Amino acid sequence: MPTPRIVEARLRVRYAETDAQGVAYYANYFVWFEVARVHYLRACGEDYRAWEAQGLGINIVEAACRYFAPARFDDPLVVRAWVSHVGNSSFRFEYQVLHEERGDLLAEGHTVQVFVDLRAGRSVPIPPPLRQVLAAQEDGDA
Amino acid sequence: MPTPRIVEARLRVRYAETDAQGVAYYANYFVWFEVARVHYLRACGEDYRAWEAQGLGINIVEAACRYFAPARFDDPLVVRAWVSHVGNSSFRFEYQVLHEERGDLLAEGHTVQVFVDLRAGRSVPIPPPLRQVLAAQEDGDA
Amino acid sequence: MPTPRIVEARLRVRYAETDAQGVAYYANYFVWFEVARVHYLRACGEDYRAWEAQGLGINIVEAACRYFAPARFDDPLVVRAWVSHVGNSSFRFEYQVLHEERGDLLAEGHTVQVFVDLRAGRSVPIPPPLRQVLAAQEDGDA
Amino acid sequence: MPTPRIVEARLRVRYAETDAQGVAYYANYFVWFEVARVHYLRACGEDYRAWEAQGLGINIVEAACRYFAPARFDDPLVVRAWVSHVGNSSFRFEYQVLHEERGDLLAEGHTVQVFVDLRAGRSVPIPPPLRQVLAAQEDGDA
Repeated sequence: MPTPRIVEARLRVRYAETDAQGVAYYANYFVWFEVARVHYLRACGEDYRAWEAQGLGINIVEAACRYFAPARFDDPLVVRAWVSHVGNSSFRFEYQVLHEERGDLLAEGHTVQVFVDLRAGRSVPIPPPLRQVLAAQEDGDA
Repeated sequence: MPTPRIVEARLRVRYAETDAQGVAYYANYFVWFEVARVHYLRACGEDYRAWEAQGLGINIVEAACRYFAPARFDDPLVVRAWVSHVGNSSFRFEYQVLHEERGDLLAEGHTVQVFVDLRAGRSVPIPPPLRQVLAAQEDGDA
Repeated sequence: MPTPRIVEARLRVRYAETDAQGVAYYANYFVWFEVARVHYLRACGEDYRAWEAQGLGINIVEAACRYFAPARFDDPLVVRAWVSHVGNSSFRFEYQVLHEERGDLLAEGHTVQVFVDLRAGRSVPIPPPLRQVLAAQEDGDA
Repeated sequence: MPTPRIVEARLRVRYAETDAQGVAYYANYFVWFEVARVHYLRACGEDYRAWEAQGLGINIVEAACRYFAPARFDDPLVVRAWVSHVGNSSFRFEYQVLHEERGDLLAEGHTVQVFVDLRAGRSVPIPPPLRQVLAAQEDGDA
């Protein structure tokens, strides 16, 4: 089984992303998942914008996150992303958010997304070149 | 078994909440869940701000959403929230997001939150008056 | 001179909109300005979505805000909007953000926006029916 | 006169930051200004979090932006920040947002912020070490 390819995005918690408890607001982890997802796809030679020019897009159909420890303003974070399942038109990403310096796991989650024809508004098979790239990196155990 | 108490928050999709696909960005559903959660707790006579003045707060430990159909700019939405489980220090909310006029279900999800002593940074039992209110509304079947 | 028509939008500060200082983050006032602007245009019988279906849109070319007092989580706010200038392709809105119960002025600002042909990416004259509505409400003194 | 010190922050437009027109939503430029402002202060050896531990903070009292050209999803941006005025308790930053590859100016703006005692809720003089650093970099012409 091929080692799953893990891509890591680095970011710092913005003041805008904190809330009145002094920690990063829970919905923002999904924004960070997106940053890592785009980073991953860019590392695969893929480009959201090229898809959109062709009338294709990705719709999130499921998203989840478990939170273990808070992230605070200016914390340096690593967001790890990898593919755990590739279906016909959908694929699933797993994510981990770690504090870059302390190394502890702050949160983990996943998203499931579907390739869609944006005009027709319905799912379509994952374009074969991307499907091949994703499948080669699929982590069958996740 | 008491009928679970469902609270409905009404809102319109803001332009700020849309993305380049012309639909509401997926992380914003968790913001709407929060709007409904606050609405629910206010309807129970509870007040986040009073808790915070006492050094208590709520930490989200788990959040998830499944997306069925997109919400678009200016769409009038109903966000329904109810309690499905009450533990010692944690409780779980379920949510549904519906298009107010068409009535179709756009998304559903849940959050689990824990009462915390904000200074000590650890979970504490749900304050008894709130626990009683929540337990009376618990939907054992969810 | 006609009395300028002022439209008021009502909203509550969301937890998502607060920051680690415990107050509403400064960029969010521009989101609230948008809520009031859309409310204003809806009250005029105008609809962003109908424009977009015709390939027209509004681009913000200038935005500013002065902050006098903080808004906190769950504060009930009134956002007042009115038109202070109507040009050929641009028009200017003024805004005030007040605490609904206390009545004090928390912030005030303005935006200038231009009508654009979204495909061509250039400004176009304000459609005559809207121009007429806006001009009738223009507050020459602002 | 010393050359004003300009700090540049680099970022990519997130999908979350786009809107239904396919461009970065106007309020997000103020978030990017904050990213550059924090970057600037970090380059000066200053740390928001150390201030907050001392009960000090910065309140934005004025913010403005002019928009010249849109930023799109995944565009690599440079956000330049420099100090144009240092008062007793307030100081002013200027910002420019450029497309990193094309080099064109997308937007420019400024913020005025005031040092505050967070508990007392009133302005205080800029702490002398920071005041000295800022004054040395002040761009008297801005």
